[in-house]
Amino acid sequence: MSKKNTLPTSENEILRLLQDRSPDKSKFLKKGIGDDAAVFCPRNAAEYWLVTTDMLAENIDFRCEWTIPRQLGRKSISVNLSDLAAMGGRPRFFTVSLGLPSVISRRWIMEFYRGLIERGDMHGALLIGGDLSCSESGIIISITAIGESVGRKVLYRSGGRDGDALYVTGILGRSAAGLRLLYRGCLQPRTRSQREALRSHRQPDPRCAVGMWLAQSGMVRCMMDLSDGLSVDLPRMCAASGVGAEIDTARLPLFTDATAWDLDPVALALHGGEDFELLFAVPESKTALLEKTYPHDLPKITRIGKMIRGRRNLWVHHDGKNRRRLKEGGYDHFRRHCVENEGAIVREGYGKNDQ
Amino acid sequence: MSKKNTLPTSENEILRLLQDRSPDKSKFLKKGIGDDAAVFCPRNAAEYWLVTTDMLAENIDFRCEWTIPRQLGRKSISVNLSDLAAMGGRPRFFTVSLGLPSVISRRWIMEFYRGLIERGDMHGALLIGGDLSCSESGIIISITAIGESVGRKVLYRSGGRDGDALYVTGILGRSAAGLRLLYRGCLQPRTRSQREALRSHRQPDPRCAVGMWLAQSGMVRCMMDLSDGLSVDLPRMCAASGVGAEIDTARLPLFTDATAWDLDPVALALHGGEDFELLFAVPESKTALLEKTYPHDLPKITRIGKMIRGRRNLWVHHDGKNRRRLKEGGYDHFRRHCVENEGAIVREGYGKNDQ
Repeated sequence: MSKKNTLPTSENEILRLLQDRSPDKSKFLKKGIGDDAAVFCPRNAAEYWLVTTDMLAENIDFRCEWTIPRQLGRKSISVNLSDLAAMGGRPRFFTVSLGLPSVISRRWIMEFYRGLIERGDMHGALLIGGDLSCSESGIIISITAIGESVGRKVLYRSGGRDGDALYVTGILGRSAAGLRLLYRGCLQPRTRSQREALRSHRQPDPRCAVGMWLAQSGMVRCMMDLSDGLSVDLPRMCAASGVGAEIDTARLPLFTDATAWDLDPVALALHGGEDFELLFAVPESKTALLEKTYPHDLPKITRIGKMIRGRRNLWVHHDGKNRRRLKEGGYDHFRRHCVENEGAIVREGYGKNDQ
Repeated sequence: MSKKNTLPTSENEILRLLQDRSPDKSKFLKKGIGDDAAVFCPRNAAEYWLVTTDMLAENIDFRCEWTIPRQLGRKSISVNLSDLAAMGGRPRFFTVSLGLPSVISRRWIMEFYRGLIERGDMHGALLIGGDLSCSESGIIISITAIGESVGRKVLYRSGGRDGDALYVTGILGRSAAGLRLLYRGCLQPRTRSQREALRSHRQPDPRCAVGMWLAQSGMVRCMMDLSDGLSVDLPRMCAASGVGAEIDTARLPLFTDATAWDLDPVALALHGGEDFELLFAVPESKTALLEKTYPHDLPKITRIGKMIRGRRNLWVHHDGKNRRRLKEGGYDHFRRHCVENEGAIVREGYGKNDQ
């Protein structure tokens, strides 16, 4: 949120160090650092188990003036459950560590836990432990979520191939539109559109049911969640799969209401963060079956482009016209630089980075 | 560390709320909130799995002037592994979320991870994920450790009975003595005693091997780790077991060298925090066998007293004389009040509180 918040070392550099020093040398470990969650298989267990962790810091990842504690609790757990959803995992447990300044009220703490627990409950995740600490400055929230595979079906970022169709769930850019409303001082929605945008930003709902269905379907090659915007996350999935991609902006599921607020829905969809929708790749031969069998009661899925040959070969076009390179229009995530003047709220884990 | 660091609500209050709202309603869950770690059993798995989390905040739990990053990394993971040790768990994995101020150096980050990974490695715990975030003030470290039982043998805080003998591992009060040296400006040890005390405080070693052996032995009724001092932790184990206790200060494994620094070894042993030794109860009928079979190459164990009838019936005496009530001489943990003028470093999780 603040442009001063830069760190002297890049997340990729740390990721490389960790992967060198901490190779996947446990016999239980199926996937270590480098995907949305780590995956391990307990001895003799029927299922794989998934672990993911995220930290949210006040005035970096959220502002207390912009959210009530119950919403913040919901969002904090949702961000973690989205990482489980991204691999097709079923949420089971979570722990939460809280660093709290001394000025915080009892009511704030209780309401935060309330939001946390009710949203976890909604997705089957039970709070099983945690820690409380004083913080000398702002609120710090660190959550670890633990999930279970369904039938050992786990989807990774890798596995996509040249020619695979790319899909996303839901609508892209709505959360980023909500954030821009907040920057403009619109804290209370006056219209349905504003309500939707603010809700997407303040309390996104993780796509757990969709993730599990897709992993189960056997039709999906790779998947991840969109936490930092398509222009940042798509290159990560492509890098993990060793391919490129092209996106048709005419097909993107846009939040068109943002036009009325002088915002560009396409830019929001490409570069807006925190949608927590799923991005996944499907072999061309299975797209018809997928679209036919995908349950109507789950959030809609939209085909937005395809994977193509060549690493870093990333393009956008509009219905075949105006083909141009897809640029990371978002942020340098770890450094949390904001490209746009209005700023943005970003977060990124090194468990969720391109390798 | 600062007396201003008070929170408006007690940890016990939050614990009660969480236990009410988050009952152990998962079929996988063996133990939720309220012990050193949560315990769950994956479907069909041969072993139980344990999860614990801790947050350390700069100037609350540590000071950068007093420790080098590699030591801090070692301590951060050790604090978590100690919670697994307390239940007899074998460390397997851990995740770490870091909130870092922008002034931090690349070298600091790398050295911190180095300490973290090497100490994890020493105990069989592999870094499998994490998150990096900017922090507006100090460093925040949040670790979640995951372990496996050995033969489904897990020890809880509950289970102790009237008449059971109480034992501790290692030496008590040495870490607290080290902390007092730091408060006095003694950052570089000049004697063997100083080196030992500072080492105990800066980079305690979790008693994982002892914990596993004791859980396996079948001779131990209940166990926990000493993170906040005997006078605080013993009442927790007694409360969980529904008994009282009496401690013989003549038997305590003291750090007697502290006398030379005008410190009271008995007070340090009773009220000093962060020893990360194990406290456990053994039926009187098994004490002889325990002492005979306990491996010589593990840290020594010392019998310090026994469990007695009556909740909150907690006493200390010196070789049968001067019997007096055991008072919590440490801190009101969650509020982090320091009783002694020299202050102290304390930390406590609600997964590690009396119920």
